Formats: sequence, structure tokens, C-alpha cells
Amino acid sequence: MMRGAILHAPGDVRVEDRDRPTIVEPTDAILRVTAACVCGSDLWPYRGIEKSDGPVPMGHEYVGIVEEVGDQVTSIRPGQFVVGSFFASDNTCEICRNGYQSSCVNRQPGAATGAQAEYLRVPLADGTLVATPGIPDAVLIPSLLAASDVLGTGWFGAVAAEAGPGKTVAVVGDGAVGLLGVLAAKQLGAERIIAMSRHEPRQKLALEFGATDIVAERGDDGVARIKELTDGLGAHSVIEAVGTQESMMQAIRATRPGGHVGYVGVSHDVALPGQEMFFSHVHLHGGPAPVRRFLPDFIDLIWTRQIEPGKVFDLELPLEDAAEGYRAMDERRAVKALLRP
Amino acid sequence: MMRGAILHAPGDVRVEDRDRPTIVEPTDAILRVTAACVCGSDLWPYRGIEKSDGPVPMGHEYVGIVEEVGDQVTSIRPGQFVVGSFFASDNTCEICRNGYQSSCVNRQPGAATGAQAEYLRVPLADGTLVATPGIPDAVLIPSLLAASDVLGTGWFGAVAAEAGPGKTVAVVGDGAVGLLGVLAAKQLGAERIIAMSRHEPRQKLALEFGATDIVAERGDDGVARIKELTDGLGAHSVIEAVGTQESMMQAIRATRPGGHVGYVGVSHDVALPGQEMFFSHVHLHGGPAPVRRFLPDFIDLIWTRQIEPGKVFDLELPLEDAAEGYRAMDERRAVKALLRP
Repeated sequence: MMRGAILHAPGDVRVEDRDRPTIVEPTDAILRVTAACVCGSDLWPYRGIEKSDGPVPMGHEYVGIVEEVGDQVTSIRPGQFVVGSFFASDNTCEICRNGYQSSCVNRQPGAATGAQAEYLRVPLADGTLVATPGIPDAVLIPSLLAASDVLGTGWFGAVAAEAGPGKTVAVVGDGAVGLLGVLAAKQLGAERIIAMSRHEPRQKLALEFGATDIVAERGDDGVARIKELTDGLGAHSVIEAVGTQESMMQAIRATRPGGHVGYVGVSHDVALPGQEMFFSHVHLHGGPAPVRRFLPDFIDLIWTRQIEPGKVFDLELPLEDAAEGYRAMDERRAVKALLRP
Repeated sequence: MMRGAILHAPGDVRVEDRDRPTIVEPTDAILRVTAACVCGSDLWPYRGIEKSDGPVPMGHEYVGIVEEVGDQVTSIRPGQFVVGSFFASDNTCEICRNGYQSSCVNRQPGAATGAQAEYLRVPLADGTLVATPGIPDAVLIPSLLAASDVLGTGWFGAVAAEAGPGKTVAVVGDGAVGLLGVLAAKQLGAERIIAMSRHEPRQKLALEFGATDIVAERGDDGVARIKELTDGLGAHSVIEAVGTQESMMQAIRATRPGGHVGYVGVSHDVALPGQEMFFSHVHLHGGPAPVRRFLPDFIDLIWTRQIEPGKVFDLELPLEDAAEGYRAMDERRAVKALLRP
């Protein structure tokens, strides 16, 4: 047996005894989880906005030590410290080779759920996991954990928005993903980075990650402010990191004609008006981040202390207190909670 | 006075006496129209799907001889044969310089309407018009006329869909724009071009323009056929040249994760479902084609007989018979009608 977080009903997360996972497929690995965390997307079922049937093991962001691998696993070995991502992927199919591992033809989306636990089974271990150069210093753990989802998601948003040299990038959403979108835009060389946030601690972190401007307004007022800051044209690149109708329209309207919207907030009840999209002339790209595409680079940037995405964790709790992590994020008392089994 | 086509009500196009246009702004030019044509988008108000208030001068595709220019026009001169596009643009603002002339900060969308007439006023003549190297042979007129809209629109669809070497491109829509999307994909070096059409004459023209495969099915069946032809993955690039909910969803679903949809059919009552878009992982780009971006290249390709987009005109009428041109296109008896004043 082991301990793991279970969502029983909206608002009701409990850490309970669960069966310890075992190798099922010869391509599986079993990890001893070093750290896991609570994701913004975990809040959708927690808030009851996304329906879930019966008790659900929670968590899909993790780092840990490999305990055991299946017979067909060749590149991952017991004893390695590894970072994974929320979709298991073979990393060899044509879609993976093109950098869209989260749409891998053999992807297993639900497979890595239940990461808020002591042990975790990861399918397609060779394709999904990336080992670090050695056992990391404790100080690197939060950043490596961030790499498993939120950094990858913010980064994909920045890449999809074509953030880069000479570009003005606006970021809609000041959760962990939006804040790491700021960090990504900075790393990608953006000239100007406008963080849209009305929360002072988050504004501060955005500035620390490289934001050059803060816009507190949202909706139409937020769009008007972005236009004011960009000669009336709109930003070249806008990262959408929320996933609501309002945030999507805010992102599209804040983008200049010919510019790029990278959207990584999981869309809930969003319908994009065709005619407005048509005349907006924006490029739209996004979806579930292919974190695996970026993991080797992330590990290198973190290992060499060039970036510290782990700063988004402003609450650290033992796994047993997972419920408090959910509550703190739900009430926006915390940006992101790290859980240690 | 002069003769020009007027839409009085759905289905009611008449050629009547109208005032001959004169220079209004010092940046205007007046053209004697050599040829104009009926656009697929003219059929929306003709069919009453798009409301119009009172009598409307029709037409926005034209080639002609410059009669007169305003005081501030410097690069366009009387006597030149010119090709224009449906949006007047300054071609100097930051948006134009980035290739999005149809979103020019000084654009005048309605300004070039009324091209189905003997004379036409074109605003921002220096930015909007491109002169040919000389007075063209009669045989080139249809192709140069096609360059003013449908070629540019199909081409922009292919560019937005990132058609190119090694790519499989599918084209949704077998109107003039879709057919010229096939031609554009071929010119851009696409490896395989799948035209979706159930009309034999249009299939034939698609093959002539470079299509390698024809798919007659549409909707879900059409998507299934595209997947069958692409190892179950979908096309790399899909050009959407219709503008309905069904055609947009057909385009998005026929595209592989990481692939590109270029949509150039003017969207009517389209709402894109956020969650499906999100998980589709496609890139979406399109809108009113910045024809001006491509005009110099088009004129060169046509002048040197490398492409013959004028083949889409399968009906040629005197301007006086414009009504028959609309009827023939509405009833799908003609792909596209050329009108000679």
C-alpha cells in the first residue's frame, strides 16, 4: 500500500491508502515520487466545473527516482532521477518527431494521473521520461518539478505565440502558467513583455521573470491598454493562459493583424466567433503542451542555474496535507502548491 | 455617366447608368476597367444571406488602364495597365510592411466596390495598384484579373496553411478560390495535393492545376478519406475556401496535430468549439487575403506564362449581361464569370 490523494467530490480531496502501482506493460516504469504538485487544471474538477465519476486519483506533475522498469524499457534505468510529463508518449511516431508528443499516436493521457502519491506508474517510460545528469541538489527540485508541466505549458504558449527578438508579448493570465509564459518569452528573446495581472505578489514575480510592463485592466479595458502600449496596433504575440471565453477574446483582440496567439489554458465552454477571427488576421495555435519536446532543454537550463521556474511554488506541504494545497490555490492564497510524499 | 452593375435586392442585379467616378482624394486614381468579375463573396448578398441596405454597386476585382491620378500619386501614371486588389492599402504602415495589407491601418475596404462598371475610383493608388510591364496581350487579361482577388485568396490560403515541399495539402472547396489554392500549393512545392470536389469539371481543372488526388466525400466522410490517404494522421496543410461551419470543421478535423489550416472563405455564422480546437493541436490562420503582398510575384508568373489562373473563368459576358453571370454562378453552372465593359 501507499498514500495518495483522491478527489471524492468537488472540494473533497483526501489522502488515503491506495494500492502501490506495479509494472503492467513491459514499457512501464515505476517511480518513487520525490515531489508532485497541484495544477490549475486540477481545480476544474475540484470546483465541480469539470464532472468526474466517483473517486479519482489526482496529480499529473511529478519528479522522482526510478524504482523499477519493464522488460522493454531500454533508456531509463532504476536509480535515475527523472522528469516526466502529463501525457505518456512514444516519442518515435511521426507526430512526436514533429514535436507534438501530447498528440502522440500512442499517447496515454490519463496514464500518469495519480502523481500526488508516493509511487507512480508511468507508461511508455522511454518516450515519456527524461533523466537528469545526476541526483539533483534539493534546491533544484521545485524547478525540475515545474518543468514537468507548468514551465512546459507556459513555454509552449510562448513558442505558439512566436515570442522572440523584436517582439512585444502580452500574457493573459497570472497563474503559474502565465508567469512561466513570461519567463519563456524572456528566454526566447522578446523585447517587451506585458504581464496582465491585478495581484501584487504575482505582478512582482512577473517582473522578476522578465516582464517589462504590467497591465491591471482586463477584458475590453485590458485590450485598450495593450493597444495604447503598442501604437494602436496590438501585441505581436499574446499568450493565453486561462481558458475562458473572456480570456480568449481578450487575447485575440489584443493581438495585431498578422500576430500570433498561443493558447494553453484548457478551453472550457469557449466558442470562437468565425467572422471576428477571420477579420482579426491573427494566427491561433495552442493546445495541451508537448512538454516532452522541451524537457531536455529545460533540464539543461535548470541544471546550469539559468532559469528558476520553481519560484512559482509559494506553498510547500507534505503530501498528507494535499487538501490544504487545493484550498489555498482555489482561494488564490497560493500560486502553486508543491507536495512532498 | 457610365454603365455599372447594381444589386437592388437579393437575386436582382441590374446594369444601369451611374455617375462616372472622379478624383476625390489626392491619392486616388481613376481606372477605365478592362475586365471585372463576379466573386463568390458577391453571392452572399445576392443570395440574401448577407443583408445589404438599398442599391449597392457591385464588384471588387478589376484590371484596367489608368485614366487619371490625384496630385499626390507618384508611382502610378495614366496609361499604365494595372492590377488592384479589393482592399485599398497604403502599403507603408507597419502592418502592410509585415504583409497584411488587407489590415492596413489606413485600409478602405469598401472603397474599390463598384468595379463591375466602366470606370472605377481606387483610393491610395500608389499602395494599392501594381502596374504590369506593359499593355498585356489579350490572352493574359483573365489571369491578371484572377490575380486581383481569387488567385491572391487561394494563394494566401496555401501560405497560411504552410503548403510547401514534403507536405500533403488538402483543399476544402472547389470554387475558384479552392481551385487556385491547388495551383498555389503546387507552385509552393507541395508533394501531394488532395482536392475535395464532387463536380467533374472542377475536378478536371483541379487536376490541371496540380491536384494529385480527388476526394468526392465531404463532412465526416471526407475527413475519414483524408485520414485514409495520410496514414491515419491527417493532412499537414488544409486550405479552407468555403466559410461555413461544416467546411471549417471539415478542414480542422482533416489536419494532423501540429498541422496548419489556412482559411480564406469568409466566415458566415461560424463558431469554433474551443475544446475541440484545443485538442486538435492545429495552427489556424486566415482572413481577407493581403493580395497586395503577392501581386508583384503574380504579375511576373503570369507575364512569363508560368501560371494561368485565368482558366477559372468559364463564362465571359459583356458587362450588360452581369445578371446572367450572377445567375450562372449561383446555380453553379459557372465557376467564375468575367465581365467586359
